[in-house]
Amino acid sequence: MKFEVTILGSSSATPIFNRNPTAQVVNVNDKLYLVDCAEGTQQQMMRFDIKPGRIDHIFISHLHGDHYLGLVGLLSSMHLNGRKKMLKLFCPEPLKEIIEVQLKYSETSLNYAIDYVFTDASQRSLIFENQDVCVETIPLDHRIPTTGFLFKQKKRLRKLIKERIEEIGIPVPYYTAIKRGSDYEAPDGTIYKNEELTIAPAPPKSYAYVSDTKYNEKYFKQITGAALLYHEATFMHDMLDRANQTHHTTALQAGEIANITKAEKLVIGHFSARYKTLNELLEETQTVFPNTELAVEGRVFVISE
Amino acid sequence: MKFEVTILGSSSATPIFNRNPTAQVVNVNDKLYLVDCAEGTQQQMMRFDIKPGRIDHIFISHLHGDHYLGLVGLLSSMHLNGRKKMLKLFCPEPLKEIIEVQLKYSETSLNYAIDYVFTDASQRSLIFENQDVCVETIPLDHRIPTTGFLFKQKKRLRKLIKERIEEIGIPVPYYTAIKRGSDYEAPDGTIYKNEELTIAPAPPKSYAYVSDTKYNEKYFKQITGAALLYHEATFMHDMLDRANQTHHTTALQAGEIANITKAEKLVIGHFSARYKTLNELLEETQTVFPNTELAVEGRVFVISE
Repeated sequence: MKFEVTILGSSSATPIFNRNPTAQVVNVNDKLYLVDCAEGTQQQMMRFDIKPGRIDHIFISHLHGDHYLGLVGLLSSMHLNGRKKMLKLFCPEPLKEIIEVQLKYSETSLNYAIDYVFTDASQRSLIFENQDVCVETIPLDHRIPTTGFLFKQKKRLRKLIKERIEEIGIPVPYYTAIKRGSDYEAPDGTIYKNEELTIAPAPPKSYAYVSDTKYNEKYFKQITGAALLYHEATFMHDMLDRANQTHHTTALQAGEIANITKAEKLVIGHFSARYKTLNELLEETQTVFPNTELAVEGRVFVISE
Repeated sequence: MKFEVTILGSSSATPIFNRNPTAQVVNVNDKLYLVDCAEGTQQQMMRFDIKPGRIDHIFISHLHGDHYLGLVGLLSSMHLNGRKKMLKLFCPEPLKEIIEVQLKYSETSLNYAIDYVFTDASQRSLIFENQDVCVETIPLDHRIPTTGFLFKQKKRLRKLIKERIEEIGIPVPYYTAIKRGSDYEAPDGTIYKNEELTIAPAPPKSYAYVSDTKYNEKYFKQITGAALLYHEATFMHDMLDRANQTHHTTALQAGEIANITKAEKLVIGHFSARYKTLNELLEETQTVFPNTELAVEGRVFVISE
């Protein structure tokens, strides 16, 4: 099942050096989930050929402008482009007021409904679930209420061994039960054990999106074992004091967190405007966690195919 | 005196085809005035090397998102980049609430003051004046309260004829009065008429910014004689019904308005997303007003040098 992340923005605070502030698209089984939506996100979506009409779920981590200022423009463009489908918006509660005051004064009545689901930064919660994936909030440690998001693939059904199924002549109506783990009893009473009819699916994978936060063990357990961990790494470690003061993480700390939580792969992002080039951040992280890449705009990280 | 306009965005409603929604910078005597500020304006300023720190005055025509959604991001970046200078913001009154609600929830207290000057779309008003320029609102005819802005160069002082001044030996303290039109009386009682001491300055020029509006004669008199007229031209004239319904202007109408108001030059912008290329709009306008150009991003229109 397709499970991948496309980076639309990697800058912290302000756009700079052709880096846009934070936004990314998570694709799970060809459904698109937008995670954060900084100013310029709709321009970035055009640039990387991501159709806004395919997005039905948007997740906003917190209300610093570099994570949501592109949202009203995107909502407005969806409206102007004829959207009718409901949009689900997972966000801190005050975002509703921010959106509504702007719609009010532009005298805009959207042609589609927004279904708000308010996040609670004080506790881990399951906020979304469908047949492919469930999404939990990750309570973080930032200056204002902030949650990351943990995308967990659903456990998939077992895979039928086609040749064996046909050989035995099992009728189609039995397939679902067998995929779920049942044995099959043939009309002649023979029992075929599930293990000889199916193979186990790939274990479900998870993607942890850890936006703005200070290093804080409170979320480590929840994100443990992520196939892909996106972690902010705003500063180099020589700026640790500044990172602590502004509730951000250093590149070295991001690598340590990936180690402690046994991530398979790490992507660092949310780079400070003080870094014109990013290699030094990457190298610092790689001293402790070699399997790290930079969240460069347009880059796609494949978790499963 | 330098007087020029740099286009930062030319699209209506949504960003598309690498066209950003409306924003432009007016440079009068090396002071920069930002006019409208759509999403992505700060990115465009970076692209065209316009330093936000040089902007002390921002003019917002109305509260449709394609004219102001980049403002909170720009204000925030100015704050993060250490701005202390007061910023003057000329805008419809509700913009204050829109900005303040966003600063509140991001827990941001700007390091500089915003001095709001609220525009009144019901009447023409002088809203700004310094030694170089004065700015009037232009009441327009749009779906929500909207004003354009008329930038009028101040009448300049007369220019001293240096050789003549030196020949007569006029002391420096008399220069200002002479530039203002006074004659000079020498110690021996000789009267030197101003006409032989000075030459007339270039006549003051004006720039009329007519953002979203329906064709409406009410603003024609005010903008008459503009050295440069920027006029929206959202649609081709075959879409006149749609233009009327949405309170916009057609390319043909923009040309007619330039003719009626005796503009020296016309720039059309605010193009609908239905036009992937813009030549047909330009050609339509030029059938009635040949001296027309397109508001293409990055293009600079020089009014005086």
